[in-house]
Amino acid sequence: MHNRWHPDITPVVTVAAGEALTLEAEDGLAGQLTRESTHADCATLDLGLGHPLAGPVEIIGAKPGDVLEIEFLEYRSADFAVTAVIPGFGFLADRFTDPFLVKWEIDDDAARSGELPGVAVPAEMFAGVVGVAPSRDRLEQLRRREERIGERGGPVADPAPESALPRSAAGGLRTIPPREIGGNLDIRQLVAGSRLYLPVDVPGALLSIGDLHFAQGDGEVCGTAIEVAGEVTVALHLHEDHKRRSRFPSFEAPARPGRHAFATTGIPVDDAMDLTVAAREALGAMIDHLVATYGFEAAAAYALCSAVVDLRLSEVVDVPYPVVSALLPLDIFE
Amino acid sequence: MHNRWHPDITPVVTVAAGEALTLEAEDGLAGQLTRESTHADCATLDLGLGHPLAGPVEIIGAKPGDVLEIEFLEYRSADFAVTAVIPGFGFLADRFTDPFLVKWEIDDDAARSGELPGVAVPAEMFAGVVGVAPSRDRLEQLRRREERIGERGGPVADPAPESALPRSAAGGLRTIPPREIGGNLDIRQLVAGSRLYLPVDVPGALLSIGDLHFAQGDGEVCGTAIEVAGEVTVALHLHEDHKRRSRFPSFEAPARPGRHAFATTGIPVDDAMDLTVAAREALGAMIDHLVATYGFEAAAAYALCSAVVDLRLSEVVDVPYPVVSALLPLDIFE
Repeated sequence: MHNRWHPDITPVVTVAAGEALTLEAEDGLAGQLTRESTHADCATLDLGLGHPLAGPVEIIGAKPGDVLEIEFLEYRSADFAVTAVIPGFGFLADRFTDPFLVKWEIDDDAARSGELPGVAVPAEMFAGVVGVAPSRDRLEQLRRREERIGERGGPVADPAPESALPRSAAGGLRTIPPREIGGNLDIRQLVAGSRLYLPVDVPGALLSIGDLHFAQGDGEVCGTAIEVAGEVTVALHLHEDHKRRSRFPSFEAPARPGRHAFATTGIPVDDAMDLTVAAREALGAMIDHLVATYGFEAAAAYALCSAVVDLRLSEVVDVPYPVVSALLPLDIFE
Repeated sequence: MHNRWHPDITPVVTVAAGEALTLEAEDGLAGQLTRESTHADCATLDLGLGHPLAGPVEIIGAKPGDVLEIEFLEYRSADFAVTAVIPGFGFLADRFTDPFLVKWEIDDDAARSGELPGVAVPAEMFAGVVGVAPSRDRLEQLRRREERIGERGGPVADPAPESALPRSAAGGLRTIPPREIGGNLDIRQLVAGSRLYLPVDVPGALLSIGDLHFAQGDGEVCGTAIEVAGEVTVALHLHEDHKRRSRFPSFEAPARPGRHAFATTGIPVDDAMDLTVAAREALGAMIDHLVATYGFEAAAAYALCSAVVDLRLSEVVDVPYPVVSALLPLDIFE
C-alpha cells in the first residue's frame, strides 16, 4: 500500500487495456479504528497514514493525453465499518469539536450500529479515492496552487509534517483534496455499474484505488462515510479520442434506479471551498459535453440542463476542494 | 390570479383542514410565450407579471405558529411548455447573453422539442412556487433584509419598478427569492406523493401555489424549467406541534424511486448566493430533526448525515437566495 500521488511509485501490477482485475484495500483510516476503539480514539488518529491505496496499476500502452475509463464491476466489503467525527475535520467542524465514533456491523447487505439504534443502511458501496499519477511538472504545479491558497489565508488540507505509508515516494501529493487527476473524489454514484473517466498524465497511467465506502450521502458531511475494508473489481479501458475528456473527472452511473446518468464534475481549484465556482465548472463542462456529443446549440444545452440535469454536492469536506457533480439522465435520449 | 406575498390579498376559497382541492394555474411566465413566439421574445418579457399564483387559500382554524402541511396528490399539465434563456437571468447569465426559446410539445407523459431533437423528457411534474402570506411585521423585516444585501453591493432579484397582476396588494413581496414562508422554492422533489411543511404566519395561513414545472433538474440552472400551465390537487393539513417546524421549509418526498425521503432546506438569507451557508443551514436543520425525532446524540446524527443524507442544489438562480436541500432516505429506519 501507498498513499501519495507521485510518478515514481513502482507499479504493483501491469495489465492490458480491457482486462479486469480485483484490488484489495484496507479501510480509509488504515484500520486504526476497530471494534475495541472508543470515541476518544477518533482524536488521536495518525491521518498521515490515511487512504491506503491499492496500486499503482500500470496499463500497457496508456500515454499522456489518453482518457482512462475505470469500469466498476463489483465490490465486496468486510463485516465491520466505522464513521468517525474527527475534531477539526468536517463541514461542521466548528459545531462538533468532540471526537465521536459510530461502529457498524455489516450483515445481509446492510450496516447497523449500536450508536444509531433502529437504523439499517443498505449497501451502496463505492471507492472514495480513485486517481492516477501526475507527471512531475503537473505535480509541482498542483502543489504550488494549493500553497497559494494557504498563503492567502485560505483552508489547507494538511498543514503539519506527517507520516506516510512506506511505499509512498517522498514529495508526493496527498489524496485530499481531489484534483484534475482524481483523488479523494467521494462521489457516491461510483457504485458497481458505473464508469469513471480520468486523464492519463504519465506513461502507463498508474492508477490507484482505495477508501472504500459501504454507503455515503452526497456531501459526506462529517468527513467520513461508512468506512470499510474490502475488494473492488474493475475493468480498465483506454480511449485516444477526447470525447469524454474534460478538465475535471467525469463519470457515468446508475444515479437513480432506472435512470442511468452521465456526469461532469467541478472542483474550484483557484477558489478554496467555493461551491458556486464548483457548480459553474460542472455545469460548464456538461454544456460543452451536450454540444460536443449531441450537436445541440449551446443555449439549447443550457436550457436542457435546467430541465433535467441535477446539481449535487458530492463532497464538501476535502479541504480546500469540494466536488459538485452535474448529472444528466441518459433515458431522455430517444 | 395574484403574484405577491401580502396579508391583505383576499382569499379566493376557504377550506377545512384535511380537505382536498384542485387549483388551476397559468404557466410561470403568465402565458407570455406561445407556439408563435420567437427566441427574441425571451428578451422582452414583462417579468413583473411572472408567477401568477392560484390563491390565496384560507384554511379554517390555521393560526400563527402552526405548521401547514401541503400534500401533493396529483398534477395535470397542458400540452405545450417552454424553457426560456432570459438575458441577465440564470446561473450562467454572463456566458449566455442572448435570448433563446425551447418550445416543448407534451404527449404520452413526455416533453419533446424541435430545438432538442432526439430528447424526450419524462413527466416529473411539481409546483415551483408554494408559499403562505407573511404577517405585516414579517413582510417589513424580509423586505429590509433584502434591501440590505443590495446596499452592500450584493445581487438584487428585481431592482426595477414593475407591473404586477391585478389582485396583488400594493407593497407585497415578489415570489423570487424563496424565503422562510416559502415562495419560489423550485424543489424538484415536490412531485405527487410529496408533502411540504410551511410555517403559518397569519390567521387562515393564506396559501398560494403556481409556477408548475413539467420537469426540472436540481438547480434549475438557466432560470426556467419546463414551464407549463396545468392543475394541482392538494390536501391541506394543520399541525399544532412543532416537530417539523424549522426555520426554512422542509419536505417529505419519493426522492429516489423506492427510497422515500424527508428533507430540510437551507436559504442563506444574510449572505446572498452563498451555497456553503445554505448547505450548512440545511444540514444543521437535518441534525436537529434527527435529534428531536429519533433521539440520537447530535454527533451520531451528524455521522448519519455523512453516511446517508444527500445534499442537493435545488435551485441556484432565484437571486439573491439559492436553496440547498438535505435529503434523508426513510427506508433506513427499521
